[in-house]
Amino acid sequence: MPRGMAELTGKTIAVLAAKGVERIELVEPRAAVDAAGATTHLLSVPDGVTDGTVQSVDGDIHPGETFPVHALVGEVSADDYDGLLLPGGAVNPDTLRQDPDALAFVKAFMDAGKPVAAICHAPWTLLEAETLSGRTLTSYPSIRGDLRRGGATVVDEEVCRDGNLVTSRDPDDVPAFSAAAVELFAGG
Amino acid sequence: MPRGMAELTGKTIAVLAAKGVERIELVEPRAAVDAAGATTHLLSVPDGVTDGTVQSVDGDIHPGETFPVHALVGEVSADDYDGLLLPGGAVNPDTLRQDPDALAFVKAFMDAGKPVAAICHAPWTLLEAETLSGRTLTSYPSIRGDLRRGGATVVDEEVCRDGNLVTSRDPDDVPAFSAAAVELFAGG
Repeated sequence: MPRGMAELTGKTIAVLAAKGVERIELVEPRAAVDAAGATTHLLSVPDGVTDGTVQSVDGDIHPGETFPVHALVGEVSADDYDGLLLPGGAVNPDTLRQDPDALAFVKAFMDAGKPVAAICHAPWTLLEAETLSGRTLTSYPSIRGDLRRGGATVVDEEVCRDGNLVTSRDPDDVPAFSAAAVELFAGG
Repeated sequence: MPRGMAELTGKTIAVLAAKGVERIELVEPRAAVDAAGATTHLLSVPDGVTDGTVQSVDGDIHPGETFPVHALVGEVSADDYDGLLLPGGAVNPDTLRQDPDALAFVKAFMDAGKPVAAICHAPWTLLEAETLSGRTLTSYPSIRGDLRRGGATVVDEEVCRDGNLVTSRDPDDVPAFSAAAVELFAGG
């Protein structure tokens, strides 16, 4: 099959985000996954949703578009999904990491070795779920000390691949991150 | 001198904050310190300031008032101040903890045992400055795991006092935090 042509047909990918998600980190990777043929579901947590939508931001504090939520993460199972996409933004994982259902959901993917793509501040949620000890990844600079204190090795690269885990640093990395996420979810 | 009556006369207190500071956690404790007779200076970092002001938020992602900045933290010395007030909000310390001048500034207060009052997400900056190992404090729930992994003991109390350090959890604690900050800065 030609690269990028419907290579994710038949797969369903969970996108987990809450208020304060960085808009471009939600929209562009999700569009790439959709374009590759997958079905994507935006999941959230009660404290991250208003009127059935997630409020995004542009550049951390400027309110951006809102996005309709498919379900709360506590209403679904990781078994229903072939992969997990975690966009960034500071307030987004700050909200997710306080929700036990969100932590159990991301931990289920990591424990099963199912593909997880996380950008910017998103690894902060994976850290709180105690899934990063001994793993190698990149992230937004502000949380790298936290990740290291949680036992991870942190590198400064556009895309870092460690087994089932693909990570990137910030909105500038989105094109490379999107391509790497599609490849990861395709089993590449 | 009657409690609360000009007990901070002659003292100068630094208030360190960046974009995304939680408005009420900046305004009310600062007003209490001002009312007790101190001079307060709002300090920030280059990435936290727009047009000479700090953009606050109400409830993490809703833009609030802006506040004029006295100076960048790299332009002043901790020696010029009698105490340090650190308001919360998620994006605020996320920005501060990436700035070496901000980290050196807060570390200077902590190393000297000078009074520091921090609320909500603010201890996240103290953590990044490597000043919390062995200390006891409280914080917003989302960062407690990070603080513990940094060697701190975290409690769930309205106000926690550990030597030179006063901490509180969230906006609901602001009245008690403001009173405790004034008492701390007064040398009580």
